[in-house]
Amino acid sequence: MPVHLSSPNPLDLHPVAGVQLGFAMAGIKRPGRKDILVMKLAEGASVAGVFTKNRFCAAPVLLSQTHLQQSAGIRALVINTGNANAGTGDPGYQDALKTASFVANQLGIQTNQVLVFSTGVIMEPLPMTRILEGVSQAIHGLGQATWFDAATAIMTTDTLPKACSRVIQVGAETITMTGISKGAGMICPNMATMLGYVALDASIHQDVLNRWVKQLADCSFNRITIDGDTSTNDSFVLISTHHNQAVQIQTGNEPEAKIIFEALKEVSVTLAQAIIRDGEGATKFITIQVKQAQSEQEALKVAYSIAHSPLVKTAFFASDPNLGRILAAIGYSDIDDLQVNLINVYLNDVCVAQAGCRSVNYKEEAAKQVMSHSEFTVTVELNRGHASTVVWTTDLSHEYVSINADYRS
Amino acid sequence: MPVHLSSPNPLDLHPVAGVQLGFAMAGIKRPGRKDILVMKLAEGASVAGVFTKNRFCAAPVLLSQTHLQQSAGIRALVINTGNANAGTGDPGYQDALKTASFVANQLGIQTNQVLVFSTGVIMEPLPMTRILEGVSQAIHGLGQATWFDAATAIMTTDTLPKACSRVIQVGAETITMTGISKGAGMICPNMATMLGYVALDASIHQDVLNRWVKQLADCSFNRITIDGDTSTNDSFVLISTHHNQAVQIQTGNEPEAKIIFEALKEVSVTLAQAIIRDGEGATKFITIQVKQAQSEQEALKVAYSIAHSPLVKTAFFASDPNLGRILAAIGYSDIDDLQVNLINVYLNDVCVAQAGCRSVNYKEEAAKQVMSHSEFTVTVELNRGHASTVVWTTDLSHEYVSINADYRS
Repeated sequence: MPVHLSSPNPLDLHPVAGVQLGFAMAGIKRPGRKDILVMKLAEGASVAGVFTKNRFCAAPVLLSQTHLQQSAGIRALVINTGNANAGTGDPGYQDALKTASFVANQLGIQTNQVLVFSTGVIMEPLPMTRILEGVSQAIHGLGQATWFDAATAIMTTDTLPKACSRVIQVGAETITMTGISKGAGMICPNMATMLGYVALDASIHQDVLNRWVKQLADCSFNRITIDGDTSTNDSFVLISTHHNQAVQIQTGNEPEAKIIFEALKEVSVTLAQAIIRDGEGATKFITIQVKQAQSEQEALKVAYSIAHSPLVKTAFFASDPNLGRILAAIGYSDIDDLQVNLINVYLNDVCVAQAGCRSVNYKEEAAKQVMSHSEFTVTVELNRGHASTVVWTTDLSHEYVSINADYRS
Repeated sequence: MPVHLSSPNPLDLHPVAGVQLGFAMAGIKRPGRKDILVMKLAEGASVAGVFTKNRFCAAPVLLSQTHLQQSAGIRALVINTGNANAGTGDPGYQDALKTASFVANQLGIQTNQVLVFSTGVIMEPLPMTRILEGVSQAIHGLGQATWFDAATAIMTTDTLPKACSRVIQVGAETITMTGISKGAGMICPNMATMLGYVALDASIHQDVLNRWVKQLADCSFNRITIDGDTSTNDSFVLISTHHNQAVQIQTGNEPEAKIIFEALKEVSVTLAQAIIRDGEGATKFITIQVKQAQSEQEALKVAYSIAHSPLVKTAFFASDPNLGRILAAIGYSDIDDLQVNLINVYLNDVCVAQAGCRSVNYKEEAAKQVMSHSEFTVTVELNRGHASTVVWTTDLSHEYVSINADYRS
């Protein structure tokens, strides 16, 4: 059961001028489900992306990175689920290239104007016949699909589609931005079996877009973790269709830029958090906040040490304030000169540890009460600096084991 | 159910001359179980230890490290289960000191000749009245307890006592070594809620003992992981009673030294592996072998990346050759210039990945068959150097979640 997540209302997902969507049911892994999505972008769109840091990164990731670098002007994205095309070597790369070239042919554009994305099982060859048939169908249907269809078409173990849309006023102009994401396992910073796409109609300069896509990932998709596993295929793509030429962001320093960036951040954070809320077997949505660190890097070490500890996560699942496990996780987070007698820990506003020891006023009942909620915040004060960070994660439940022990069967 | 582990036969556990054992049932956490162990060493014994690297290390760890450094000649060890005396600040340190001083008084030795060890729940104050009563009882019974009793007295979530003994011939002399260990969760390199003690009657010079304790830990207790959590209390202690003066190891370069070290290694590895075999919820015992790395450090990164991946561990549990998860874990093991197209992966002798792709001759049935065994080996060849390492781990089962969600209740 997802934690405070419901299916988006299709009526709340606004079309973005300059983006056409089409999907297909190609039967890549199972028949009868949407598993191919094609996004066609109007000429002149700007696109920026960030990708997995996994060294075993998938063939389509390598290809999409190359095509983005060639700056020929991206005109189409094609996404398949059911097969990751990772750990497939040169034949896998050729398959990704073949897919791009097929799309290019059908749309009358160049191969390097196409980005390719895959998600699913690793180390199995792509079923190219079904893929190309599906792509052909999806292209045929371009313009008929909604963002809700698109969100559904990229799901794998997700239980719900994930999408978010914002319409904002920038001066006299109305700007529309809509995004979709997928992912429920193998979720970790930098990034996860997670795909995210956000498009907006404002006109954002390529340099600004390149900067923003990294900044947005760093405050959303790079701050979530379910199981500490970084996938081979993660990608986050930001698209400006330039359809609304009245709003021009050239440097990112314009007053309008801040408004648009904040709205994009809201969309990205919502899409990223939706992945955690739908995390495999998740029964809780937990915010881990680390304050007073010497650097954000240091704060992140502590936050992930807590977020990745199976012992902490099972205690979250059990609503058991076994808080020593949190202290232990802080203790092994690999900060050499950490002074544990300066550390305070809170569950929501209940102070559980003060100066490295159990808080004098601590009542287990109060901590248990906080942990019994399906959403709560763990705050750690390190008392050694001014940097801070926030990470979102889930508990570790029986259901997680079931899902991952049975995923392929 | 532990994996290929049975309770040691008390008759196989040989007394070590110069070590007297006593236990008590002090009711620290629950009544009716052995929870205090006292080891009294004959005058002149040499002792060396390695301890947790967790910054939140427990009060008794701090105290024992100090006492070892003071080199007053350790004469007694006292171990309690049920409470870790960690995250307890200065009052916790005073409690550990009080315990040491109590033991010293009763035995007519100095306080800094006593080492103190605790394991159990973190961040709760030690019940000192019960502890001291128990210690008193244990001292009263010194000499009556066996190594089997000792192994039982240090258990927490362990389902079986862990002990190992070897009697070896060194020239005309017979050397006896016996050890015990405990631990089943929060198990990780450097080290875990794990305690290990090995005593032998040969005469080993303090400098050699100091070196050996580290070397032994590095090939045994520092090569096991269940959940990646490093505990606050881990300790491994090596004791030479010097009872058998006929075998003198002064430099470690003597021909006898090699024989003794190898036997100690066998005992340490057996004790460490017993912890994994009894791992919380373990249904499999998995050896992860990484070869052809540029350094052992690099090999360890890859090995732990695989051993800590919840996705790999659930696949092990399910006997599901979802081998892409292993490749993904290798890919995110943080080796910058890793060339994935050089990597081979084997399950026992079945080659599953060759040059970074699925092996041409790979049959899923063969991999499934290997994984259905309760013990198997994953071998990774990196093809970039000559260093290698071995790590032992478990799968991740429903039972693991149950145990850790319910541990305190």
